[in-house]
Amino acid sequence: MIDLQIPSVHKNVGESAANYIETLTKPSGSLGRLEQIAIDLAKMTGNEFPNITPPGILVFAADHGIVNEGVSAYPQDVTKQMVTNMVDGGAAINVFGRQIGAEFRIVDIGVVTDVSEKEVINRKIRQSTGNFAVELAMTKEEVEKAVQIGFEEATLFMESGVKCLIIGEVGIGNTTASSAVLAAITGADPASIVGFGTGISKEQHENKIAVVQKAIAFHQPNSKDAIDILSKVGGLEMAAMVGAMIAAAQKQTPILLDGFISTVSACVAKLLAPGVENYMTLSHQSAEPGHLVAIQHLQIEPLLNLNMRLGEGTGAAVAYPILLSAVNMIKEMATFASANVAEKT
Amino acid sequence: MIDLQIPSVHKNVGESAANYIETLTKPSGSLGRLEQIAIDLAKMTGNEFPNITPPGILVFAADHGIVNEGVSAYPQDVTKQMVTNMVDGGAAINVFGRQIGAEFRIVDIGVVTDVSEKEVINRKIRQSTGNFAVELAMTKEEVEKAVQIGFEEATLFMESGVKCLIIGEVGIGNTTASSAVLAAITGADPASIVGFGTGISKEQHENKIAVVQKAIAFHQPNSKDAIDILSKVGGLEMAAMVGAMIAAAQKQTPILLDGFISTVSACVAKLLAPGVENYMTLSHQSAEPGHLVAIQHLQIEPLLNLNMRLGEGTGAAVAYPILLSAVNMIKEMATFASANVAEKT
Repeated sequence: MIDLQIPSVHKNVGESAANYIETLTKPSGSLGRLEQIAIDLAKMTGNEFPNITPPGILVFAADHGIVNEGVSAYPQDVTKQMVTNMVDGGAAINVFGRQIGAEFRIVDIGVVTDVSEKEVINRKIRQSTGNFAVELAMTKEEVEKAVQIGFEEATLFMESGVKCLIIGEVGIGNTTASSAVLAAITGADPASIVGFGTGISKEQHENKIAVVQKAIAFHQPNSKDAIDILSKVGGLEMAAMVGAMIAAAQKQTPILLDGFISTVSACVAKLLAPGVENYMTLSHQSAEPGHLVAIQHLQIEPLLNLNMRLGEGTGAAVAYPILLSAVNMIKEMATFASANVAEKT
Repeated sequence: MIDLQIPSVHKNVGESAANYIETLTKPSGSLGRLEQIAIDLAKMTGNEFPNITPPGILVFAADHGIVNEGVSAYPQDVTKQMVTNMVDGGAAINVFGRQIGAEFRIVDIGVVTDVSEKEVINRKIRQSTGNFAVELAMTKEEVEKAVQIGFEEATLFMESGVKCLIIGEVGIGNTTASSAVLAAITGADPASIVGFGTGISKEQHENKIAVVQKAIAFHQPNSKDAIDILSKVGGLEMAAMVGAMIAAAQKQTPILLDGFISTVSACVAKLLAPGVENYMTLSHQSAEPGHLVAIQHLQIEPLLNLNMRLGEGTGAAVAYPILLSAVNMIKEMATFASANVAEKT
């Protein structure tokens, strides 16, 4: 298993940044949350003038045996097809990634079919998880292997120069797995978590709730044991995302969370490696109802609320320019002294 | 007076855009407000694949006689000093403008002191407005001249290639003038509008409310007459912003509104030239309490809520990448057919 120690953030650097922001040519506090973001990024990176360029988008792709229970609006083939679409640059995450000048990598951690594209990093552990309505999603050894792979791939990505990590996913069925994981961690009723995912009918939604409720009752996951939960009702891409988050926090690289699956994975990461959450910023609040439950559990405030629910890392990529504005503010704005502007009377 | 006719938006192009978005490789509706933004921009520009690059930031600077009533936390000199700061590229609006690749122009429409920098477009109508606690802010002829100048400068800016207009302002005292204008338009009690501006004390805040209340009672502005309101309690930069908004709408160029002063000016523009609001997107909700009153009057939904309250156009510049994401989505994403991705079952 990977090292789970998370270094403390640099409180003193955050204080220096806060003091310096007070000298910039604007009324105190008038840039609102941008000011706190700059302070937070200074704390994480240990640099009063943080560098978050280039961002890197790391997508983990995997399939889910739970789709056999009729929980998704799309056929399972779509996971592989979307991987190809991402390699070709046509998915939403590619579009937004290009806009922010992001590096992009995609890892096959458990797609059910063969993925032949050489641009896809092949770290497949197994072909899809098991159907957790009737069996384990995966063994504990497979969970640990997926966490390890996520850790390794994120580490390599950061070593290549990435300064801010966006961790995305693709996997038909993964809102169902995420709902089950979140229910296991929080004890919340799946009925308050489960949403319409990619756009299922009302009938399918009721079925999806029942599937998650039964799975929790069947497996009785231990709410304090991240590996147990992932093994029983999780996803391979979720386990990899957990490992990637831990790697980023250990390198004191800011993590920009996406939506539901990303935030649930962050809850798991916090359970496994407390302190990892100090390196996270939440990009947006998703339209998936369970996202609010995850946000409240993680006690983290979203930057955007644009009713998005696509996943892939898209919300994070769309929100990244806000982080960049915060950084540019502290790096580039003139001070009252340097610009000869009079201060408050 | 300028022509006040506003062309209709291209509903049919909006419908084509909406239909096309349904073919993109993502669940229907899953990019939330980005989809509606793309549709709105298509309607405004008449182009299913709208072009909003480069954006242009047009800042109008002016002083306010009302500062004699002790309504601001900063001395009046700061208006001129911030104009110089903007010329030197050290203000927040410069920083965020560079980030989004914006063109930048600044116009002196009524700064109280001489502005010598050649980079500032000199269209000064008078040195500051009058103190509207005791006299007209300006004559109706001056209002019309300011509207005309705003119209002309925005037109020139768009003719130089700007495809999306951000209209900023700088002027110590302009939250007071904006509060009075909004109270005149909506009939709302100034106590529910007036905020802390650049950071006044509680005592100064009570005084600021009283100043606005007395000014409304003294001048009795006609809530249906934009010129009358601006003449009695407005600002030169606000009148110029109104003219610039009308110019943009006539050229079917999207307008990205900033915060309180920008949105109040948009309310005035709507009063003067109904239909102009169809070319506006609201970037953010400001921490100024009056902004919510203006938002509700204009019936427009903000994109961001980051507790910002700086003005200058900063909220709009920070939000611009969201508009760009919407445009990039419709321009660059693959379709289900082009990417060979299976549709919903």
